Amino acid sequence: MTDLTTDTLTALEAQSIELPSWAFGNSGTRFRVFPTAGTPRDPFEKIADAAEVNRLTALAPSVALHIPWDLVDDFGALRRHAENLGVSLGTINSNTFQDEDYKFGALTHHDERIRRKAIDHHLECIDVMDATGSRDLKIWLAEGSNYPGQNDMRGRQDRLQDSLQQIYARLGDDQRLVLEYKFFEPSFYHTDVPDWGTSYAQVAALGEKAMVCLDTGHHAPGTNIEFIVMQLLRLGKLGSFDFNSRFYADDDLIVGSADPFQLFRILTEVVRGGGLNNPDVAFMLDQCHNIEDKVPGQIRSVLNVQEMTARALLLDRDALTAAQEANDVLAANAVMMDAFYTDVRPALAEWRESRGLPADPMKAFAESGYLPRIAEERVGGTQAGWGA
Amino acid sequence: MTDLTTDTLTALEAQSIELPSWAFGNSGTRFRVFPTAGTPRDPFEKIADAAEVNRLTALAPSVALHIPWDLVDDFGALRRHAENLGVSLGTINSNTFQDEDYKFGALTHHDERIRRKAIDHHLECIDVMDATGSRDLKIWLAEGSNYPGQNDMRGRQDRLQDSLQQIYARLGDDQRLVLEYKFFEPSFYHTDVPDWGTSYAQVAALGEKAMVCLDTGHHAPGTNIEFIVMQLLRLGKLGSFDFNSRFYADDDLIVGSADPFQLFRILTEVVRGGGLNNPDVAFMLDQCHNIEDKVPGQIRSVLNVQEMTARALLLDRDALTAAQEANDVLAANAVMMDAFYTDVRPALAEWRESRGLPADPMKAFAESGYLPRIAEERVGGTQAGWGA
Amino acid sequence: MTDLTTDTLTALEAQSIELPSWAFGNSGTRFRVFPTAGTPRDPFEKIADAAEVNRLTALAPSVALHIPWDLVDDFGALRRHAENLGVSLGTINSNTFQDEDYKFGALTHHDERIRRKAIDHHLECIDVMDATGSRDLKIWLAEGSNYPGQNDMRGRQDRLQDSLQQIYARLGDDQRLVLEYKFFEPSFYHTDVPDWGTSYAQVAALGEKAMVCLDTGHHAPGTNIEFIVMQLLRLGKLGSFDFNSRFYADDDLIVGSADPFQLFRILTEVVRGGGLNNPDVAFMLDQCHNIEDKVPGQIRSVLNVQEMTARALLLDRDALTAAQEANDVLAANAVMMDAFYTDVRPALAEWRESRGLPADPMKAFAESGYLPRIAEERVGGTQAGWGA
Amino acid sequence: MTDLTTDTLTALEAQSIELPSWAFGNSGTRFRVFPTAGTPRDPFEKIADAAEVNRLTALAPSVALHIPWDLVDDFGALRRHAENLGVSLGTINSNTFQDEDYKFGALTHHDERIRRKAIDHHLECIDVMDATGSRDLKIWLAEGSNYPGQNDMRGRQDRLQDSLQQIYARLGDDQRLVLEYKFFEPSFYHTDVPDWGTSYAQVAALGEKAMVCLDTGHHAPGTNIEFIVMQLLRLGKLGSFDFNSRFYADDDLIVGSADPFQLFRILTEVVRGGGLNNPDVAFMLDQCHNIEDKVPGQIRSVLNVQEMTARALLLDRDALTAAQEANDVLAANAVMMDAFYTDVRPALAEWRESRGLPADPMKAFAESGYLPRIAEERVGGTQAGWGA
Repeated sequence: MTDLTTDTLTALEAQSIELPSWAFGNSGTRFRVFPTAGTPRDPFEKIADAAEVNRLTALAPSVALHIPWDLVDDFGALRRHAENLGVSLGTINSNTFQDEDYKFGALTHHDERIRRKAIDHHLECIDVMDATGSRDLKIWLAEGSNYPGQNDMRGRQDRLQDSLQQIYARLGDDQRLVLEYKFFEPSFYHTDVPDWGTSYAQVAALGEKAMVCLDTGHHAPGTNIEFIVMQLLRLGKLGSFDFNSRFYADDDLIVGSADPFQLFRILTEVVRGGGLNNPDVAFMLDQCHNIEDKVPGQIRSVLNVQEMTARALLLDRDALTAAQEANDVLAANAVMMDAFYTDVRPALAEWRESRGLPADPMKAFAESGYLPRIAEERVGGTQAGWGA
Repeated sequence: MTDLTTDTLTALEAQSIELPSWAFGNSGTRFRVFPTAGTPRDPFEKIADAAEVNRLTALAPSVALHIPWDLVDDFGALRRHAENLGVSLGTINSNTFQDEDYKFGALTHHDERIRRKAIDHHLECIDVMDATGSRDLKIWLAEGSNYPGQNDMRGRQDRLQDSLQQIYARLGDDQRLVLEYKFFEPSFYHTDVPDWGTSYAQVAALGEKAMVCLDTGHHAPGTNIEFIVMQLLRLGKLGSFDFNSRFYADDDLIVGSADPFQLFRILTEVVRGGGLNNPDVAFMLDQCHNIEDKVPGQIRSVLNVQEMTARALLLDRDALTAAQEANDVLAANAVMMDAFYTDVRPALAEWRESRGLPADPMKAFAESGYLPRIAEERVGGTQAGWGA
Repeated sequence: MTDLTTDTLTALEAQSIELPSWAFGNSGTRFRVFPTAGTPRDPFEKIADAAEVNRLTALAPSVALHIPWDLVDDFGALRRHAENLGVSLGTINSNTFQDEDYKFGALTHHDERIRRKAIDHHLECIDVMDATGSRDLKIWLAEGSNYPGQNDMRGRQDRLQDSLQQIYARLGDDQRLVLEYKFFEPSFYHTDVPDWGTSYAQVAALGEKAMVCLDTGHHAPGTNIEFIVMQLLRLGKLGSFDFNSRFYADDDLIVGSADPFQLFRILTEVVRGGGLNNPDVAFMLDQCHNIEDKVPGQIRSVLNVQEMTARALLLDRDALTAAQEANDVLAANAVMMDAFYTDVRPALAEWRESRGLPADPMKAFAESGYLPRIAEERVGGTQAGWGA
Repeated sequence: MTDLTTDTLTALEAQSIELPSWAFGNSGTRFRVFPTAGTPRDPFEKIADAAEVNRLTALAPSVALHIPWDLVDDFGALRRHAENLGVSLGTINSNTFQDEDYKFGALTHHDERIRRKAIDHHLECIDVMDATGSRDLKIWLAEGSNYPGQNDMRGRQDRLQDSLQQIYARLGDDQRLVLEYKFFEPSFYHTDVPDWGTSYAQVAALGEKAMVCLDTGHHAPGTNIEFIVMQLLRLGKLGSFDFNSRFYADDDLIVGSADPFQLFRILTEVVRGGGLNNPDVAFMLDQCHNIEDKVPGQIRSVLNVQEMTARALLLDRDALTAAQEANDVLAANAVMMDAFYTDVRPALAEWRESRGLPADPMKAFAESGYLPRIAEERVGGTQAGWGA
């Protein structure tokens, strides 16, 4: 049985991973969205599902909202609903990709009316943050162009900075803006924030409350993502993670499912750089579940992050440093692999039980009857998806 | 002024490029489909739009249909409608990605009921072919899996062969089956026909009436596509092209727009391998127009193919061979580049006029008032998209 | 402690992985080859190093040779030398990339003199096979072109087939030809056998004694390699593996070091398709060790394959099939991950000891003093590298 | 005949592209370096070859040197030799990848002795700059690691900054440091400056005399390089280009040969961002010629840049802006493509003649007998390569 030290268990106990409300709605590809029985019809039901993940894992105490999908008349009521279920409302995500006006851009648009509208949308998101008590405004720009020449990339970059400055100015003292980058999609030729360098340059020009969001699925093939993690921590600008995984062009698979060793290397750099349980570095999921069940999909995801964090914490830093300093390539790599290959699952199961949690949250969920219950109860109405 | 030889002009005059009916419907990404005024409401209107492309270019005399999107009660009427507009009905495309039953597979499914249903769908497509006079049944499998372990890839491959055999057996003497491959999407971990090798192995086991369809947007980054064109022509199994282009993960951009030199190299291998104006090798577009206007998007596309074919025909084969045999790398490459860099557009414009066509079909279309007219006329009803 | 079943242990005991003689020579990049003390000066010393790997692991009973690097006057003597050290001589690898004549091609060359020379080189390799008792001739073509137009790809493909036929005709009844494919390098624009489809089409045209060699490092980014393993096993044409790993453009890292989960998936398909301990499917390493020590680099590599094979054999096939047939995506994936995440190392260590082998071959090697000994003994002469 | 405006011709006349001395030496892959008759034996002969490129094109008035490959006893003599041939000595390139000490790092090494040595090497390079009158010190770090765990990436990044500060402090008032980034190679797992973001963050911390060098061949597949050009110009940190091109993993092909449209887009952003004929933005080639002749390879390269710059200058900015502001995707793209597809070669040929230059420098070179002459004259000695 692998032993986990007290320090490791303390660190794991402090870990929290924010869930995205949209993970509980229907999602799919451009070809088809397959609906599932029991899918939430409103933000209250999404939060109920998210709370179930937290109840079984004690890992997911907050839920990110997406505006306008999660707009409600009374955010106070939503907040109390969440608190009653043991979770809080977290990061507010803006949306500038579904309004007809935003077909050719939003925060970067050359049409001042449309750009104003997009800025105002973000100011309203900050209003929501004030109501929900959220700290972070996450901005992912779906903007860009499909064809060379379609847009003036330089002008857009300058307008983006101006738009962000206006939004930044509205942030409260304890609020932050995190700017996500994405290599591709939904624009095909250029995206306005395609890489960490662009996000970094943009937020560095804003000020201390602006940070970079690193989505693990948003990089070119072959990119060494843990290097970027290291660099952003070094520069003091890693604001948050959007965890998910990807084989080629999707970015919605369960975190750790495509390349578990990569997730291990990322978390190793997080620990190395002081990013674990550091309030400046938010851990979030940004996934959807196109074909698998959504609630257990989220449980599996937070467990994956927890298990891999445990492996990263197992890493024998002294042995690693000694091997590195001796230029002993095989020994240094062996120290890494030893932590990765250690099966932490039995020790984690035992530890969970010691905390009054189910040893196997996936099994506990399956036995809870939650899915059949919501399938029966949630009849009628419109299932939530990327449009609501 | 570049001179185009009589042989070149004869070859260009014989060129025909099939248009996809779905190019005239609305399309988009998983994030948003932006509608356009004037979008067709039914197959008759799609064909009218396609006929307009052909009227101005004399390049697009046939239209591919997608079943069930283009199902009509009376295919005889649709056929006459097309013929009245100067075009014919072409390749029939099946669809196994939108029915709830096909969530986990169709022609590869382990559930015999579902697999039977998918086979039957293809037999019905052949019924449509009989009614429309179409030669080719094009099969693109959207099937696969999102997670390792989700499916038994080997069993699926065997069932695919069995399904294809049943479909193949129903083909008429003058009908063909073309099997498309795609590197990724909409399945994320594995697709059941991911590469030309798989398509080739599957169709080779069927017989002479089964061929490979090469979609220019369906390859891994860095793939030398013209090599595959060469190889399939060599093996006698290149049945058709789906033309489009791609920067990273989309596959719907206008053919030639992302990498015109690649299109040139592809067409050069087509000419080299005897694939030009060869009835065995169908030229088709498979594109959608998410943000640009659809009819002129198609006009631009067929012109791109025509112009690049003209450049490929300009290639000085004797000079190329001489340089190759002399191992003169720079000279051989220069012969290629000379053809590519030659501006064939003025000569083509003049030649079009000599044939009673507009010198600049894009301009002629813009001046025709066609778009405002359909925007005005096509009011009410449901605009066509990927669901219909 | 993980239990390994008797069947699993029997399978593992039967496993053998061929070592490449060149793994023990110096290697590097185009920028620099860093030499190492103790590097072999001739094939006899290479085999001594390889035998050391086998002595400690009982996993590597044969050594592949590379001609002309491993040419010796008396192959009988080399064979006896190997046998005395408990290993045999294995696959013979030809070399058509270092002779001045092959600058622009070898088996594909338009110059008949050069092509004849390249064919003759392979016939001589078969002479070596007769002398060494080797079964397999492995052909990796370094041929291709750097610039579009430089070569006639089609003509080269046809000449390749002709060359291979001549070589094939010389094979003895129990000998085979395996044709390796490679996506890129050392040619930059096209390689003459870039993908499995090409290798498959070429060897299928030869006959039953010709098979495909799959080098795990020779694919485009994002390629699902286990799919190809499955397909080649299904088609009866998977002749051998060249194991190694790769992050981007190198292909010489220790097998399993870049993406251990990928290696697991590959071995899972090997087991699924009947490729394990199947004489038709040779397991070989094709790696070099640019910066790490070579002998322990090879020990680490064969252990990686062994450990991952053990995990693949742990896979609960019944549970997997049940989950697949229930379309339970999460459950099916969980079965896969459970096998992957199980730490088989303690059980394997115990099992090794039970067979009279060191529990930890890496540690045993380090303690053996072998490296300091060869560094002291092998003074003078010319260290082996890619030129010898 | 395409007309080039006076403004365009003035801009083209001012254009200069620095040649790398190492382009005239032998080069190749890790598999083989093929030598060529006439290859220079020393820096004087390299400069003679470079001057020949400039004599025929008036485009390449300076030559970059690589230290220690181009170390001479008397740089004053080398400078006078260059000036006598009508060229000057340009950027000084350091080398930290060939000394045995640098096997595991140089400017990033944890061993202070080795790091000191690497810093001192750069200080000596600045001494050379003082002697040659060079402005720029170009640093490409070949450093990194091959295996996860081998090195502490974070510590290396901090040491890199410290090393660069020490080098920066030695720069003269009119001297600059440009820091090149590279996605991969010769290290396989991580490179210490893998992307523009890292280079930017490092040089921004140094000061105004430190800039980023963008090598067109050093990016992940699918990267939008012109976006980075735009961004670095916007941030005022684009110090220089290393031009070359690449299909997959090489980075030494003739600029513009793999994707001419990409080169066009890059130059379009250069013009857009004020980078053309801007002394802050140096244009350099960084190519080698493995299989083609070297001097004409360089002529072809500078002509490619010149021709593509002419196309970029042809771009109708007013029409482009109007189409962009109208959100007319097809029209905007058409403006781009019109410039790209225009054949500028005849007009450039005529203009060259009007300046007393050969209309076709490639032809003029072939007819000059230069290659046979140097092949005859340069007998004996050691041909230059990457080791000298």
